[in-house]
Amino acid sequence: MSTAGQVIRCKAAVAWESGKPLSIEEVEVAPPQKDEVRIKILFTSLCHTDVYFWDSKGQNPLFPRILGHEAGGIVESVGEGVTDLKPGDHVLPIFTGECKECPHCLSEESNMCDLLRINTDRGEMINDGKSRFSINGKPIYHFLGTSTFSEYTVVHVGQVAKINPEAPLDKVCVLSCGMSTGFGATVNVAKPKKGQSVAIFGLGAVGLAAAEGARVSGASRIIGVDLNPSRFELAKNFGVTEFVNPKDHNKPVQEVIAEMTGGGVDRSVECTGSIQAMISAFECVHDGWGVAVLVGVPNKDDAFKTHPVNLLNERTLKGTFFGNYKPRTDIPAVVERYMNKELELDKFITHSVPFSEINKAFEYMLAGEGLRCVIRMDA
Amino acid sequence: MSTAGQVIRCKAAVAWESGKPLSIEEVEVAPPQKDEVRIKILFTSLCHTDVYFWDSKGQNPLFPRILGHEAGGIVESVGEGVTDLKPGDHVLPIFTGECKECPHCLSEESNMCDLLRINTDRGEMINDGKSRFSINGKPIYHFLGTSTFSEYTVVHVGQVAKINPEAPLDKVCVLSCGMSTGFGATVNVAKPKKGQSVAIFGLGAVGLAAAEGARVSGASRIIGVDLNPSRFELAKNFGVTEFVNPKDHNKPVQEVIAEMTGGGVDRSVECTGSIQAMISAFECVHDGWGVAVLVGVPNKDDAFKTHPVNLLNERTLKGTFFGNYKPRTDIPAVVERYMNKELELDKFITHSVPFSEINKAFEYMLAGEGLRCVIRMDA
Ligand SMILES: NC(=O)c1ccc[n+]([C@@H]2O[C@H](COP(=O)([O-])OP(=O)(O)OC[C@H]3O[C@@H](n4cnc5c(N)ncnc54)[C@H](O)[C@@H]3O)[C@@H](O)[C@H]2O)c1
Ligand SMILES: NC(=O)c1ccc[n+]([C@@H]2O[C@H](COP(=O)([O-])OP(=O)(O)OC[C@H]3O[C@@H](n4cnc5c(N)ncnc54)[C@H](O)[C@@H]3O)[C@@H](O)[C@H]2O)c1
Ligand SMILES: [Zn+2]
Ligand SMILES: [Zn+2]
Ligand SMILES: [Zn+2]
Ligand SMILES: [Zn+2]
Repeated sequence: MSTAGQVIRCKAAVAWESGKPLSIEEVEVAPPQKDEVRIKILFTSLCHTDVYFWDSKGQNPLFPRILGHEAGGIVESVGEGVTDLKPGDHVLPIFTGECKECPHCLSEESNMCDLLRINTDRGEMINDGKSRFSINGKPIYHFLGTSTFSEYTVVHVGQVAKINPEAPLDKVCVLSCGMSTGFGATVNVAKPKKGQSVAIFGLGAVGLAAAEGARVSGASRIIGVDLNPSRFELAKNFGVTEFVNPKDHNKPVQEVIAEMTGGGVDRSVECTGSIQAMISAFECVHDGWGVAVLVGVPNKDDAFKTHPVNLLNERTLKGTFFGNYKPRTDIPAVVERYMNKELELDKFITHSVPFSEINKAFEYMLAGEGLRCVIRMDA
Repeated sequence: MSTAGQVIRCKAAVAWESGKPLSIEEVEVAPPQKDEVRIKILFTSLCHTDVYFWDSKGQNPLFPRILGHEAGGIVESVGEGVTDLKPGDHVLPIFTGECKECPHCLSEESNMCDLLRINTDRGEMINDGKSRFSINGKPIYHFLGTSTFSEYTVVHVGQVAKINPEAPLDKVCVLSCGMSTGFGATVNVAKPKKGQSVAIFGLGAVGLAAAEGARVSGASRIIGVDLNPSRFELAKNFGVTEFVNPKDHNKPVQEVIAEMTGGGVDRSVECTGSIQAMISAFECVHDGWGVAVLVGVPNKDDAFKTHPVNLLNERTLKGTFFGNYKPRTDIPAVVERYMNKELELDKFITHSVPFSEINKAFEYMLAGEGLRCVIRMDA
């Protein structure tokens, strides 16, 4: 019996207030409206951004809310006007969208869609400014337009990537955010040539995905930089060949790297969010041709500061958002790179829990244990 | 009668001390040594850098010195080991070189040769650490390895571009420095696509050459930014379509430009040397795809400062040196662009004086009059 057009009652993990464990509740999920898709989520994973907004440090808290933005699922039904997706399609919901009509979507270079660019403050769907989630008629806020910590969710069609139905959703779900961000930062933006050296600042999940991008690109040296020495053991499985802990040196890490490499690395990718690491990542690239790419999300009042001669000496400084991938156009091909065994994802998935134990995923992340915990919705 | 292997006695304009008019003297010019070329200079033009080192504000003064680095001439004789140049070749001496062997010369991207990169402190030839110029046996310092304010000069072969002998040296001499720097900054580094908008900060000779690059690239809008309104009339002949004087607005010029262009220009090129203009030039490019290129030489203690989110929103920041041109490999093709009437040079040449009146060229520049004054050596 089809559920299309009906309200679906299902389980969701609701964040009722800042920093308190999520509680699994029965929620009502309204049918998708114009340009919306209702998706049955099969697997979802936890990213720092979920924890950050659950904690609600430094932002306007928006509760109760259904968090979650890395996930894989199957289209249950589609709303009016949706033509490129149909029930049964395998999809990844993405926290940022692609309307295919704005100047950014029409540009070959940008993925910062005017209509569907990430918006952490919005808790409703853009079609009617209302939530599709409720409990006894009381609305529950959306998160990033994805809210994947629910058996069913409603997402704008512009935020849905249709992928190869053969792809295992318990693996490729992690491509919804962090892994694509890091991997794309290297392969789409830093673009190391075969044999070049790459420095990766920050060896969290995003940095290790950037290292994976360097490995896939055939980098000759991948220098990992982190303040946390426990990250170094892990990083060996990600092609990182050398390690530098800035704390071990009494000169700036950019000077250490310049000495190790005869003047600087060819490429660097910063995945820390630390402004000092951003500056070091820029200043450690070789003059003449070096390219530095910033990925980490800085603090509000941070200032990037360098002597302009570092630029005049022909270094390039760039930043990227979601690895410069357009969610609908580009993410299906990233899934194919996994299917072709070019890109490795399994090593990023260090934990797995049933939906009923979703709070354990938060505990692992808060303890800095592992990289990605996949949450099995049907378990 | 050949002068090869002989000391040549000829006229040169010697700077005896900081800020004092040059005086035309008879000098001895020694024969070229290993990897050196002796050139008969026919035309030379004056650039700010000559005036800056003549003034010797803020640097170690090196006097007596023969200044000059924009010029066109003919090879008189070549030293040992020089195979790709012969007497009679038409050449442009260049203030920075290309050894063709170092990592920079071997890189497709860099022109910052390790051996022959610009060195303003050096007053001698690198082969023996001595000068080729003397007066009654007393050495006179070289400048930038070019010292073109002399009827004959000795230059390292790596700093000599061999050009089409049909090219008028009284015109293409200006390609030795400023015009190539600005033009290359746009066409090689900013690379605007046809129909894109370009902002040029600073409408001096370098900035107008950058505007010429934008015109040649088919830019739809070329927005000129300068603090000096008298530059605006001149700039109309260089394809500049709109003007902004930061002094006319009570908000930052990057905001003014963002409003004029629906979010920012596609490309910007900074040719001022002002750190504030560098920051504005970066922040005025469109998010998602904007590229800003720095050309101006900053002060020693300047800091480039911006919020990292301006980078994360997918703007690119680059700097360039000599328009990213490799002097020997690339400059001959720039001369061809002039010969094909694609690139216009004549409009940059606003004055011309005989060698005996070289101090007039300094006066024009100090008064901010015109763009380039060509000095005719044989007159
Ligand atoms: N731009 C995007 O689209 C996007 C998407 C996802 C995540 N991110 C950002 O990427 C960054 C990394 O994410 P993550 O999930 O891997 O985080 P993480 O916290 O797991 O890893 C960050 C690592 O950086 C290290 N670090 C911190 N300061 C450092 C410094 N000064 N020098 C060297 N190492 C330092 C930490 O020890 C840690 O190992 C975060 O800022 C996150 O917000 C950006
Ligand atoms: N990178 C290189 O290879 C290279 C080569 C030659 C020259 N340069 C540099 O390029 C720059 C320009 O050279 P030029 O010969 O055209 O100089 P110029 O002095 O003739 O022109 C500079 C112009 O910038 C304007 N200006 C100054 N501050 C400004 C501000 N804050 N906003 C807007 N406009 C401002 C001035 O009014 C002037 O019109 C200089 O810094 C020079 O040193 C670099
Ligand atoms: Zn769009
Ligand atoms: Zn995320
Ligand atoms: Zn070289
Ligand atoms: Zn010059």
